[in-house]
This record gives sequence, C-alpha cells and structure tokens, in this order.
Amino acid sequence: MSAIASLTTYVAKTTHLHWLEAISKWDEAVMMPTKGGFSRGQSLATLSGMIHQRSVSTELAELIAAAKQEDITDPWQQRNIALIEKTYHKAACLDQDLVEAATQATITAEQAWRSYRADNDWQSFKPILEQSFILHKQIIQAHAELLNLSLMDSALDQYNSGITTSIIDPLFTTLSQELPDLLTQALAKQQQTTLIRPNGPFPINQQEQLAKQAMQLLQFDFDHGRLDTSHHPFCGGTPDDVRITTRYDERDFIQAIMGVCHETGHAKYEQQLPTNWREQPVGQSHNMAIHESQSLFIEMQICRTPEFMQAFAPIVNKVFGNDAAYQPDNLYKLYTEVNPGYIRVDADEVSYPLHVVMRYEMEKSLFDGSISIADLPDVWHQYMQKFFGLSTLGQDDIGVMQDVHWPCGAFGYFPAYTLGSLLAAQIKQRMQEELPNLAACLTSGNLQPIFQWLGQRIHSQGQLRDFSETVLYAVGQPLNTHAFLTHIRNKYL
Amino acid sequence: MSAIASLTTYVAKTTHLHWLEAISKWDEAVMMPTKGGFSRGQSLATLSGMIHQRSVSTELAELIAAAKQEDITDPWQQRNIALIEKTYHKAACLDQDLVEAATQATITAEQAWRSYRADNDWQSFKPILEQSFILHKQIIQAHAELLNLSLMDSALDQYNSGITTSIIDPLFTTLSQELPDLLTQALAKQQQTTLIRPNGPFPINQQEQLAKQAMQLLQFDFDHGRLDTSHHPFCGGTPDDVRITTRYDERDFIQAIMGVCHETGHAKYEQQLPTNWREQPVGQSHNMAIHESQSLFIEMQICRTPEFMQAFAPIVNKVFGNDAAYQPDNLYKLYTEVNPGYIRVDADEVSYPLHVVMRYEMEKSLFDGSISIADLPDVWHQYMQKFFGLSTLGQDDIGVMQDVHWPCGAFGYFPAYTLGSLLAAQIKQRMQEELPNLAACLTSGNLQPIFQWLGQRIHSQGQLRDFSETVLYAVGQPLNTHAFLTHIRNKYL
Repeated sequence: MSAIASLTTYVAKTTHLHWLEAISKWDEAVMMPTKGGFSRGQSLATLSGMIHQRSVSTELAELIAAAKQEDITDPWQQRNIALIEKTYHKAACLDQDLVEAATQATITAEQAWRSYRADNDWQSFKPILEQSFILHKQIIQAHAELLNLSLMDSALDQYNSGITTSIIDPLFTTLSQELPDLLTQALAKQQQTTLIRPNGPFPINQQEQLAKQAMQLLQFDFDHGRLDTSHHPFCGGTPDDVRITTRYDERDFIQAIMGVCHETGHAKYEQQLPTNWREQPVGQSHNMAIHESQSLFIEMQICRTPEFMQAFAPIVNKVFGNDAAYQPDNLYKLYTEVNPGYIRVDADEVSYPLHVVMRYEMEKSLFDGSISIADLPDVWHQYMQKFFGLSTLGQDDIGVMQDVHWPCGAFGYFPAYTLGSLLAAQIKQRMQEELPNLAACLTSGNLQPIFQWLGQRIHSQGQLRDFSETVLYAVGQPLNTHAFLTHIRNKYL
Repeated sequence: MSAIASLTTYVAKTTHLHWLEAISKWDEAVMMPTKGGFSRGQSLATLSGMIHQRSVSTELAELIAAAKQEDITDPWQQRNIALIEKTYHKAACLDQDLVEAATQATITAEQAWRSYRADNDWQSFKPILEQSFILHKQIIQAHAELLNLSLMDSALDQYNSGITTSIIDPLFTTLSQELPDLLTQALAKQQQTTLIRPNGPFPINQQEQLAKQAMQLLQFDFDHGRLDTSHHPFCGGTPDDVRITTRYDERDFIQAIMGVCHETGHAKYEQQLPTNWREQPVGQSHNMAIHESQSLFIEMQICRTPEFMQAFAPIVNKVFGNDAAYQPDNLYKLYTEVNPGYIRVDADEVSYPLHVVMRYEMEKSLFDGSISIADLPDVWHQYMQKFFGLSTLGQDDIGVMQDVHWPCGAFGYFPAYTLGSLLAAQIKQRMQEELPNLAACLTSGNLQPIFQWLGQRIHSQGQLRDFSETVLYAVGQPLNTHAFLTHIRNKYL
C-alpha cells in the first residue's frame, strides 16, 4: 500500500468512528428511552476516547510524514493531507489533562446552565462559566501559538476556519450601523399591513405530513435520510444517511415547518457532498459559516419568499383545508414578521445579525482582557439598549444566560450564523444572474436547477478550498454585506 | 489501579463497543433509510475490527495473567475472570486470515441463500454452503483442540456453552420417540373442536397498541426499552435500553402479538440482569438455551394459557371491539392450534422440537463425517417423512434451505430452541410449586410475582454458574423432558 493509501485508510477508519458517534447521538436525542443513559454515556465516552487516541497517535504522525514524502499532484489529495495534518497538530499540541478537564468543565457548565438559567441565577452560574472559560481559553491559547493567530482568531478557527477578525470586523461594523435603522423602518412598514393568524389546533401527524411534503419540494433524498422529532431541531447522521429533526407545537405549524426547511438546507449540503471523498476531510462539509449559509439560503432566500409561497400554499391547503390564512400572501406575511426581542433563536432576519454582533464583540473583549466574565451582564444590557432599546437588568435568563454556546465552550461559533446570512444573500444574487427563470422555478415548485447550482458551486466542492476561495468559487466575489442589506431593504421596506 | 480493576476496565470498554454495535445494528434493521448502507457497512466493519483487536491483544493477555496473580475470593469476580480468559483464548487461537475468510464466506453465503432459496436452487447454493462449512469447521476444530472437545461439542460451545452431546442425546432421543405419537393424538383431538377465525383487517397502529398493552401486562420496562417494527423480529439493544421488534400483517394480529410476547421474554431477561456487573461477562445473559428458555417460558408457559387469555381478552376487546372470536376460550384455541408442516419457524409447540432434533442429528453427522453437505437434501427428506410424513424431494426451499443458520455458519445453534422449551416447562412446574396462586396472578393480570421469581432464580444470576448449575439453581433438578412432555399432554390431549 502506498504511503498515501495507508494514511487515508487510517483516516477513513476514524471517520467511521465519527459516523457511529453521529448515529448514536441521533439515537440518543430521538429514540433512546428515558433511562437508557448509562450504557449510552459509557459507550460514547469510550468511543470518543478511541477517536482521540487515533487523532494524536504517533502512528498517525508517521503516516502523515510518509505521505508528505510522496509526489502529490491531485489538488484534492494535496488539500486532504493538509487538512489531516492541521487537525493532527491541533489535537497533538494539547495536554491530555487539559482536554479532559475542559470536557468535564463543559459537562458541568452545561448542566448548571440548564438549572441556573431556569432560576435566573447568574451569581451561582458565574464561577462555573468562569472555570469553563479559563480551560477553553487555554486550549485556544495553545492553538493560537501553534497557528500563529490572535486568541480571537484562534477561537474562530475552531468553527469558522479561514475566517479572522480582519474579515469579520468591517462586515459587522456595517451591519451594526445599518440594521438598527432598517429595523425601525421595517417595523413601521409592518404596522400598515394586517395578517390573519391561522387557527389551530394543528395535529402533529398532519404537521409532519406537511413537513415531509415541504422536504420533497426541497428535493430532500429520503433514500438517504429521515425526518424525526427531537427536543432541539438538528441535522445529524452521515453523508449517505442524513437525519434532520424538528419539534412540533399543536397551536402553530408556522415555526416547525420553517425549522424543517432550515435543516433541509443543511441536509442537502451533506447529501450532495462528493461521494468519492466522503471518508476524508476534504470531502466533508466546510466550516460552520458555509454550513449556515446553506440552511439560511434555503430558509431565507428560497422558502420565505412570495414565489415559494405559491408552491407551498397548495400543500398547506391540502393538509389543513382551505382557509384565508393559508393563501400565499398571508403565509408570506406570517413568514416575514419582524419582531425584535430578547432571544436570538426567536429573532427575525433583520434583528438576528445584531444579536450575533454583540456576542462577537463580547468574545473579542473577553479574549483581549478588556472585560471579564463578571462584566457580561452589564455589557449585555448596554448592547440590548443600543440595538433594541431593551433592558436585561436583572433578567440574565433572557440575557447572557440564554445561549448554550458559552457554557459549552463554543467561543468563536456565533459569527457563523451571520456570515452564513451574508453568503446566502450573495448566493441568491449570483444564482439569479445565472438562472434567469429562478422565480418561475420557485412558483412552480421545480427546485431542481437550484440544487444543481448549489451542488456544482458549493456542495460537490467539499473542503477543497479555504473559506475565502470557496466563497469566490461559489459567488465570484468576496464575502460582503451588500447583497444582504439589499435583500433586507427589498423584502422589508 | 489493581490488576483486576485494570482488566475489568479494559473489558468494560470492549463491552461499550459491543453496545454501540448493538444500537447500530438495531438502527440498521429499524431506522436506516434504504440507501444508507455504505456508511453503516464501513462503520460496522471498522468497529468489529477494533473489537477483534481488543479481544486478541497482548495487552489483554497480560492483564489476564496479572489479574490471576491476585487473591480473588468473590465468586462473581472469579467466574468473571474465567469467562474473560476463555473468550480470550478462543479468539486468540484463531488464525486472523481464517477469521476474515469465514466472515467473508458468511456474508457471501447469506446473500446467496436469499436468492437461491427464492429460486429453490440447491445445486447453485450447495458449493457456497460447502465453502462456508469448511471454513467454520476449521474454526470449530481449533476450538475443539483448545477446549479438548469433540467437533460437535465445540460447535455447541459457541452458542450453548456448557451443553454437550452427552447432555442432549438422551433428551432428544426421548423427544423423537414420544412426540410423533403425541402430535397425532393432538391433531385428532383438535379435529373435535371448532374455533372462530378473527375477521380483519386489523390496522397496524391498533395492533401496535395491543402489542404495547400486552408488553405492559408482561411488565416490560418502557423506561429501559422500546418496541418497533422490522422485517424479522428480534431483541437487541443494551441491558438498560432493550429494543424488541415485531412485524405486522393487517390480515392477522394473532402471530404479531405472540411474537411480541416471545421477544418480551428475551427482553425481561436483559432488563433484570445484575446492574453492577452489566459491563462484565459474568453479568451478561447466559447461553442461548437459557435465553430461549426465557422467551419460550413467557410465550408458551405464560401467554398461551387459558389463564393469561382471561387477562388478555379484555385488552383485545378494547382495541378491536367485542367479538365472539376475541373471547378467552376462542383466543386460547387460536393460540394453541397444532398444525405440523415444513417450516420450523411456523411450527407449533408440539412439532417444533422434531424440527430441531433432525437439524441436530444432521449437524452431528456432518461433523463425524458420516454425511456431507451434498447429502443434506436426502437426509432432510427422510427425517420429514419419519417425523411428519411429508416429502421435501425437489422442494429444498422449504427443506434444507429454509433456515439462515447454516449459511451464517451458526452450526450448533438449533438445540437452544428445544433445550429452552424443556427448561421453560421445568421453570413453570417449579414456579407452580413455589407460587401456589400463580393461576390467579395470571387471570388477574398481576405478573409481578412471576418476574420477581425469574429475576431471583435466573435473571439476577447472569453467568455466575455454568449451564448445569444454572439449571439446578433455578429449578432444583437437572434438565429433563418430563415437565415438557407432561405440559404437552395436559395442554393438547
């Protein structure tokens, strides 16, 4: 076996273990009976230990060194080995005790977060979050030294590889300047319209039927995937067995269905990754900004549009009967309501980036030492005042404690949501130039050309290029705010 | 860490990998979309390779050797180490190439079996089965030398450890002498009664509802398990997450529900294993004869009884309405129909052991060389003539090719079914002596004392004792045919 083949065989087996982990975690969220946790917890801990061992082994180091001696001309293989090497060094540079302490702190902080958030008890939660932050900062510090990055850029590298503060800062500055005013205008315009609220209850089996028909419209491949129910919606599984979930509320079908459309965006990306490379890093999905661009493109640029509502309304009528509330115009209004508030995950498309910007700015300040964890509630309140005119004083449960990311140590994650929104808007703009009949495709429910375009420009490319090159290859220009702000103006003003 | 703790920690991690395998195989049979096989196949192959590596490693050999140096007084730990050591030696004595060839031959033979059985094409199937037999015989030979057993006893040791031909031969001789005549008498008696066939269709969601209520009667713990649908019913999962499956036929609910009761017998055994030892061999379920005794006890000795039908009929009435066919008497007749035929899995309680005896006799003849694979169709036909007066000449699809066991290399498995039947009858007899109000428990649907008895005498004992001692501990006498034949006479004559 060639040195490259030996390396890729080794890496493929690690991928197989990640696939087992993905199915097992899906099962835990969707299928596991309430008291099946002991065997599941033990199994996943052992599996994760084995994955870690394989990721830092001297065997892997030697396989990488040998492979690099070979003459590699295939750009996919070149990039693949570079990705393997980076992942190896990032894992191998960490002290094993630190990794274990951080994992333990994450578990502790996530559990504490659930109860202290419910009790709005920041004082009790603070020391636990501080401990988790200290440990994750040490990991981020080690990676910063390895990769010669600042702390914040090192944090970003975990979830948004190839994206640095120098890329984000100008984009987020523009958004924080433009969006508060656009939000005010959008609200003023919305006050002049009326909408009809659908009258429930909406039985869950009917909502599920509607969700599956929406997924069919979005060309979800049910031979390579499933839809199920879980407490928090997610997209999991493996590239040839992609599993999305949603949750249902009998009083309202609007949110559940759009949640399904969002997850279908993630799922289509996974389903259209390059089959030949699926066991190797280069053939897997890119960073979280690209992943979010795919879900947000489907949700915001395809589904929440007047055109898509033409194709969607007849399905709603078929499932829930004919009603004035289910006409395309009204559905579109329901799906584009602007309603700024405290909670990021409930935010509309106009408000959402401001929630992300404030979290990003706070992370930067935490890493440059200008604020500490103890300062977060006050800083949070100031941003909420500035962006939304809302106060979170004494309301940390709907303030700094609302998200699971920081307790989980996921510093550097948040920008992915908004960078994804920006890219999604650029994709739509570019796609409209190249598919002049895009609107007709949407109204008629023929989305094949859309997914073919996404497949060619993004999905089939895996991680062949770094982030900036991936954006250029997909849309022909660097990431910017122009398409997004134009989209917001056109849609909401 | 003590040498024993090091060993049991190592073994626990291997158990965790088996648990992952169990959940992943359950998912493959129950949840996986039709084209998700690539990632699943690769994942399971890699996992099974890792389990094998851990099972034959020098690390394990050294841990065993060190543990045996310690002073062990706890009989559970003594037995645990003995079981670990036996499993290690059985794995380590095999040539790795042989194991891989046999695995490959099994996959090939099982696939060939599906199509050649469908085509009734023995001539094409024969060389494939021969190849699989040769390879599995080599494994059985290696184990025979290691354990100083005959070939047939070595084959039995794989699934029925502690059970040898010297135990089985006298039991099966009695059964083959007694049962053909009892079968004739049972058929004659049956001709004098009439029964009412239920009138379908029976919607699958209602059958599932009925099945779950039957499981509740049988004290299945839904916090530690699930019921789902698959092509072939099975009991899988882990001891704290036991997953049984069934299949439904809209025209008939009788079979599906009793299949569920059978699997619930397996499941209760798993759910009542000793929690403290669940990661170690000594705390896991015993051989297949014991496992089948638990499913057959629930199915044949508890559920297919006039008493249980008193508790079951009201549930059937609640789900499918009131009908003469669903009265306890008629349900009991439906659940005890005698109907000898070609197919083992469809056989009634009286005929079933004869199907097992003939397979066991053929396996013995294959291993002592008195017949070859090529002789099987003729020998099969002769046994069918002798036991049932039926001919399988030219009908190998319902003859020698009907079972998946031999293509899978599972020689030595079949006796488990009938040894399980014998033990189940002895358990019922013993239980009746010790729980004088057993009949009242059944008619009233209070099965708690039954499962408490099974828990104390069998389930909580894991593999603490060898087979014969396990039987003695449970029922106070060695395995015999007396209770079973009495049960058959009382029930069918």
